[in-house]
Parts: sequence; C-alpha cells; structure tokens
Amino acid sequence: MARFDDTIVALSTPPGVGAIGVIRVSGNDAFKIVNTLFGTKDLTRVDSHTLHYGALQQNDQILDEVVVSVFKGPNSYTKEDVIEISCHGSNFIIQQIIRALIQSGARLAKPGEFTQRAFLNGRFDLAQAEGVADLINAESEAAHMAALSQMRGGISREIQNLREELVHFASMIELELDFSEEDVEFASRDELKKLVDRILEVIEPLLESFQLGNAIKNGIPTVIAGKPNAGKSTLLNAILNDERAIVSDIPGTTRDVIEDEMVIEGVHFRFIDTAGIRETDDRVEKIGVEKTHTKMREASLVLYLIDLANDRIKEIEKQIEQLESKGVPFVLVGNKLDKARQELTDHLSGNEHFVTISALTRENLNDLRKKILKIIHLDDFKTGNTIITNSRHFESLTKTKAALLQVIEGLDNQVTNDFLALDIRNALNHLGEITGEITTDDLLDNIFSKFCIGK
Amino acid sequence: MARFDDTIVALSTPPGVGAIGVIRVSGNDAFKIVNTLFGTKDLTRVDSHTLHYGALQQNDQILDEVVVSVFKGPNSYTKEDVIEISCHGSNFIIQQIIRALIQSGARLAKPGEFTQRAFLNGRFDLAQAEGVADLINAESEAAHMAALSQMRGGISREIQNLREELVHFASMIELELDFSEEDVEFASRDELKKLVDRILEVIEPLLESFQLGNAIKNGIPTVIAGKPNAGKSTLLNAILNDERAIVSDIPGTTRDVIEDEMVIEGVHFRFIDTAGIRETDDRVEKIGVEKTHTKMREASLVLYLIDLANDRIKEIEKQIEQLESKGVPFVLVGNKLDKARQELTDHLSGNEHFVTISALTRENLNDLRKKILKIIHLDDFKTGNTIITNSRHFESLTKTKAALLQVIEGLDNQVTNDFLALDIRNALNHLGEITGEITTDDLLDNIFSKFCIGK
Repeated sequence: MARFDDTIVALSTPPGVGAIGVIRVSGNDAFKIVNTLFGTKDLTRVDSHTLHYGALQQNDQILDEVVVSVFKGPNSYTKEDVIEISCHGSNFIIQQIIRALIQSGARLAKPGEFTQRAFLNGRFDLAQAEGVADLINAESEAAHMAALSQMRGGISREIQNLREELVHFASMIELELDFSEEDVEFASRDELKKLVDRILEVIEPLLESFQLGNAIKNGIPTVIAGKPNAGKSTLLNAILNDERAIVSDIPGTTRDVIEDEMVIEGVHFRFIDTAGIRETDDRVEKIGVEKTHTKMREASLVLYLIDLANDRIKEIEKQIEQLESKGVPFVLVGNKLDKARQELTDHLSGNEHFVTISALTRENLNDLRKKILKIIHLDDFKTGNTIITNSRHFESLTKTKAALLQVIEGLDNQVTNDFLALDIRNALNHLGEITGEITTDDLLDNIFSKFCIGK
Repeated sequence: MARFDDTIVALSTPPGVGAIGVIRVSGNDAFKIVNTLFGTKDLTRVDSHTLHYGALQQNDQILDEVVVSVFKGPNSYTKEDVIEISCHGSNFIIQQIIRALIQSGARLAKPGEFTQRAFLNGRFDLAQAEGVADLINAESEAAHMAALSQMRGGISREIQNLREELVHFASMIELELDFSEEDVEFASRDELKKLVDRILEVIEPLLESFQLGNAIKNGIPTVIAGKPNAGKSTLLNAILNDERAIVSDIPGTTRDVIEDEMVIEGVHFRFIDTAGIRETDDRVEKIGVEKTHTKMREASLVLYLIDLANDRIKEIEKQIEQLESKGVPFVLVGNKLDKARQELTDHLSGNEHFVTISALTRENLNDLRKKILKIIHLDDFKTGNTIITNSRHFESLTKTKAALLQVIEGLDNQVTNDFLALDIRNALNHLGEITGEITTDDLLDNIFSKFCIGK
C-alpha cells in the first residue's frame, strides 16, 4: 500500500442539499486523519467493514454528527485504507468537514483519482475502470448492461485470452532471434497463422459490435421516414406517449424527457423526423427529400412508414429496393391497419422487415418494438456477447487488426523473424492499451479527468 | 418497533450524477426486502453496524455492485431496522434499485418520513427533528451552530426544565380541586408566583434571542447608510472582496456569491444599499432619504459611514442622536482614515460605536468586523446561550408567556383554582408544542413535508 504517500479526500455524492452527503478519504493516513476529528472512539483500532456513529469535532467545535464507514486496505475500493463519512447533506457542513480533513493532512482528490488509484493498485484493469465511468453515466438498460459487463471484466477477459496466446508466439519468435544463426524454428509458422486467423475472428465481431455499442451508449439514431401523410408524427407520438405511460406508474422515476429521445425496452433511441419522401419536380422540395435520404444513410435504423390504405404495391417495391441499397437496418411499418387493403398486407406479409400497426389506435405497437429489437440485433446485448462501446477500445482494436494483417502478410512473404516479431509486439501493445497494461501518464490523465470528483 | 407496518425507501443523497448514491430503507422488513436482491450473503444474519460488498440482482440480472450498511433497530436513525445501499451514482441505477425494492415490498418514503419516524419512535423530540432540517439548510457557521445545538437538544432541555417545575404545580392545584370543599392548599401560591417569575425570566431572553436567531438563520439585514460620497459602495466592495479572498484559498469551497450577501466571521449578512442621507428641499430626493430612514429602522444593523476628511462634528452629533432614537444597533464607521481630521477622530474616539477604517486601502477592516460582532451581540451564539431560530417556537413561547401572565394576574386577583389550573395547563401545552409532546397530525405533516426526500 506504499504506492502513494498522500491521503486524498473528496465529496463522493452529487453536490447540492440533500439528506446525506458522503465524503471519501483514501490513503495510508486515512484512519489517522479522520481519527483526529472523531472524538467518539479510536478508529485506528476498529475492525474493517464496520460502521461508527459519533461527532466530528475541530478545536472543541462540533462540525456534525456522522456515521463513519471503515474499510481496511486491501479490502476497499482503492485497495488503500478508506473511510467514508456520511454527514448531513448541507453544503456548509461538507465544506467544513473537507476543510478540517485537509487541515489534518489530507489533500483534495482530483476527478477520478480514487478509481485511478484502484487501477494503479491492481484492483481492476483500465477497461474495467472505464466501465465504472460508463456505468455512472448510463441512461438506459442497454448502456447500463454494457457498462456493467465491462466493469465486471467482460472485455478484459476477451482481450486477455487473445494476448496470452500471442505472447507465447512472440516469445518463441524472439527466442529464434537469439539462435538466428542456427536456423531453428521454435514457433510453427502454420500454427501462428492459424492463431492470427483465430484472433481476427474474435476481433472482427468486436469491431463490428462498436456500431451497436456506440449506439447503445449514445442513443440509436432512428429516422422515421415515409411518404407525406403516411402517419410519421402520429407514430412518434404513439411511441412517446405509450412509453411515458409505462414508466410513470412508479413515483419518483419520472425524468425530464427530451421530446424526441426515448428508451424503448431498455434501449435509448434518438428519433429524427424527416420530410415526407415523394417524387417531385419542385427544386426546394427535392432538396428536402435528398436530405431525408442522407439522414437515412447515416441512421442506425430506419422506420419506413407505409400507408396500408392508400399505397400501391409497385411503389412500395421500389421503396424497399431503395432501402436495401442503403445498407441500413430498416423496419417496414405498415400503418393504418384498420383501413388496410387486404391485397397489400398479403403481398408484404412474407417480408421479414414488415410489421402492421395503427399509429392512431396504438394497435400492435408491441409488435413494432419486438421487430425493432430483432432487426438491429439488439438481442446481442442481452445474450451476454461482448460489445465494444468505447471509441478508445475501438481504435486500439483497429490498430491491433492492422498489425495482425501485417503479421499474415509477413508470413505469406516469408519476411525475416525480426519484422515478424515487431508486428506481433505491435499487435500485443495495442491490445494491451485496452486493459492498461500499456499506458502513458497522458492517457491515464485523459481517461480519469473525465470521471466525477469523488469517484 | 411495531409502530409502523410498512417499510419505506428513498434516495437520501441529492439527485444527479455522482460517484455514489445512497438509498435508505427503513422498517420491519428492511433486511428481508434488501435480502431478496442481495445475492452475496444473508443480510438477516449479519451483525448490526457492519458493511457488506456485493451485487444487487433482480430476475438474474445484475442491477449494480453495491456496499450495504446494516443498522439493527433501535440502534439506527429511525430506531427501526435500517439498510443504506451505497450504489454507483447514476440516475438509471438508482431508479432501477428503488423500483426493485418497491417490487419487493417497500414503499416510497414521503419527504422527511425517516426523521418523522425517528421522532415518533422517540429518538428525539420535535425541536430536535426541526434542528435536523435547519442543519441541512444552514449556510453559515452561526446558522450551523444554532441548528446543531437545537438538534442536540439545546432548546429541548431548557423547555423540559421549565415544564417539569410547572407540571408539579399544575398537579398540586388540580389535586386541590378534588378536595375543593376542604379548603386545603397543596401548592403554595407564593412559590407558584416565584416559579412563574423565574420561568418568565428564562422565556423572555429566549423570545428576545429570536430576532438574532432569525437573523442568523436568514441573514442579518444590514443597512449601509451615510451622506453622499461617504464611501458606501467602496466599503461594500472592500468587505465583499476581502471576504472572497479569504474563502478562496481552499479549493472546492467557492460557491455562487450573491453580490450583496456575505458570510463574515461565520455570520450571514444581507447588505442593503441606500440613498445618501442629506438635508434637502428636493421633493423626490426627500422621498429617497425617507426610504433610507425606514430601511434603517427595519434593519438589524446599520453601518453608518462618516467622512473623516470632510464631515463636521455638529452634523455628526445630530446623526448619532437620530441613530440612537431608532433603537437599531449601529456602527459608526469613520471612513477615509488616511485623510482624517485629527480633531474629528479625537472627538469620536470615546464612542463605543466608533471604528476608523479606510475603505479604499482596506485598512482596519478587521476592527470593523470585530465591532459588528460586538455591537449585535453575536458573541451570544458562540457562548452556547440558547437561541430561538424557529418562528414556530417563537410563537409557542409567546403564547406560553401570555398564559403565564394570566396565571400571575389570576394569582393577584385570587381567581378560583379551576381558572388557575386552566392557565397553567395552557402554558404547559404551548411549551409542549415546541418539543412535540403536544402535537396534531396536521402540525407534523406541515413540519416534515418541508424536509428533503430521503431524510
């Protein structure tokens, strides 16, 4: 525990007036420092994981009556000695206590410094530490689950497995370098190639998962498109109101709702309204329609509305063709179910993207939800598949992939061992960046400065 | 602990994103309810005042990794079984956990309901409970100390002592009523009168302390007055900037400063700027000057600026006379010390209200501070004298005093025992309202509904 000399302190609960505020103290002198203010009993002699009620005093003046939580390192968040002081949630009291702790020898913690110490003391790796920050900021079930899985080591385990196998080959090839004049081969080139292929097979789905992961974390950009009067706004309202009704039966859970963002079945969607699409000669309207097409290409999901009462089969066929050509996941939402032409629903019923609803009467909205989750493979986040949500991880994996492709190219071209060893080390380094086995101070500062104070 | 059947839950830390959120659960089923979600160990079998790390799960889905604090009643805040769950400070997680606890049988707590239960379970009396709310809202050292003293039973003890002595007399006189035909006297009328006098001697300073107490709690209205160009604004800026510089050397303590409110030596002042005072025939200016005089009468403190370089003795004498006639504490602030006329300072040096400063060079500001604290007897709050800060207590004490004066009047007029007994009971009831021995549901609802959620 001698890694850090100083003891840090910060408010760990959100600022503002509340029933309770929690002040966290971590470091070699945590017990000694809090003890100077805690008159009730000697905190240096109590058991770990115990709670103690008493008064905090400075110069014979009572600061507050508090409950103190004692965690002895390494069985604490930072693996150092930690005390958490639960005081009355007044700004004045919190300031007074932090000031008194600083006067007794603590130092104000930087943002994320508790978690940074936990990382540097080996409590978890860098990807897990980043999961902690994501967890705090998660606003939907999917983002929450992805962050929780990351914090609990989901991604770390995947990366660790890949690294271990590669490390073995790297050592063998580096050993060959030592014996370079004897023309031995410790590492089978065939097996190396097989291994690299296997690793690429793991990395590629991870890389692909980033689009979903990023969407989960920041909200899935969803374009609602369709011809004018297909019922786009009615649909949006139907979805928004329906979900609001669902969440509002638990008191205290209501939050500010941004008109066109919504969590559906635990996934955060950002709805983007568009101009109705139709063939037109009007120059201005053409620009609007072109914009809609651009938005559709950039979206992660398109809800394309069909007017089941009025649209014609030929027209729809053409629209489906256009949608498919964009390569964006889409749902064909057959609206106006109550007035639907049988011929049209029959024709489309075989299409896996098709679902029928009535935005007006809110019929079948549940079918639409299920279809959405299916179309964008959102089940993935529930099946426990590892998902990349962090752009830093995506970048490192991309570089790993490039290095591994170099390895394969090197093997094909029979480059010398030193080049091969370099490329393998390169891949290893990029993998190591994710879990923090390879780091720089700048990188760490950059990551942890984005944390809250007190975490 | 069977007083309440249901178990309540609420977030006890301020809402918003932070490192930690604390969710409090209190009631007969607190352990059982949290246990249904806590997979790591059986919380119904652990010791009181212990901490347990583990995962909260619902339907095989992990909600969060948390630390659970266990308090077995009656050794808890509410005197019931209490669990505090320290989770990651994300809105989403907090909602999920509270929702899960409600689904497991808890009920969302009303504002102040934990403290209300603590009161009804006899942990503290009503004045102490009100001290808790004041403590959380305290924004200055003086308000903090008054609230802390109240929470720790300062006022309650005073009231309790008074009541006990009166109760004795009330019983004796009521006993006399039972023997009314025998003309006995169990209670000495002389001693009763002495006691009532003694009680009034305690109540009157308490009533008087309310002006200070209210000022401490809500800020002391301080008028800065003086002739035009005496240096009023320079003084205000000097005080404001000086105090700002003092508080800003501790990082994290800076708060939003309202331009003309300031905490000086732990006391909250609200500065009120005024038009310069001078003899004038201008009708409009006369109205301004009259307003200044009104503000001065309503203030708790007047800082009256004298221009030591230019003012004349005669004029100043007249101003001092006016100030004294208003009955408001005042400080004569001799400004422009650097250019002061010796004759003037010599003349005023004997006046206990007088202090010399230079607002421009900020000389002697410390002397001014000391003088302010002395003039408005702010030392009282540091000497441990009990101060009334709560208008409800002030009202009850006022009614107690009225009832006691009735008792004295009754004694003087030799009214019958039943009238005497009625007046004494009346006084006792009003005293009892303060500590909550006499309450109504409406009163309690009114008091506790002003608390934060989770307290």
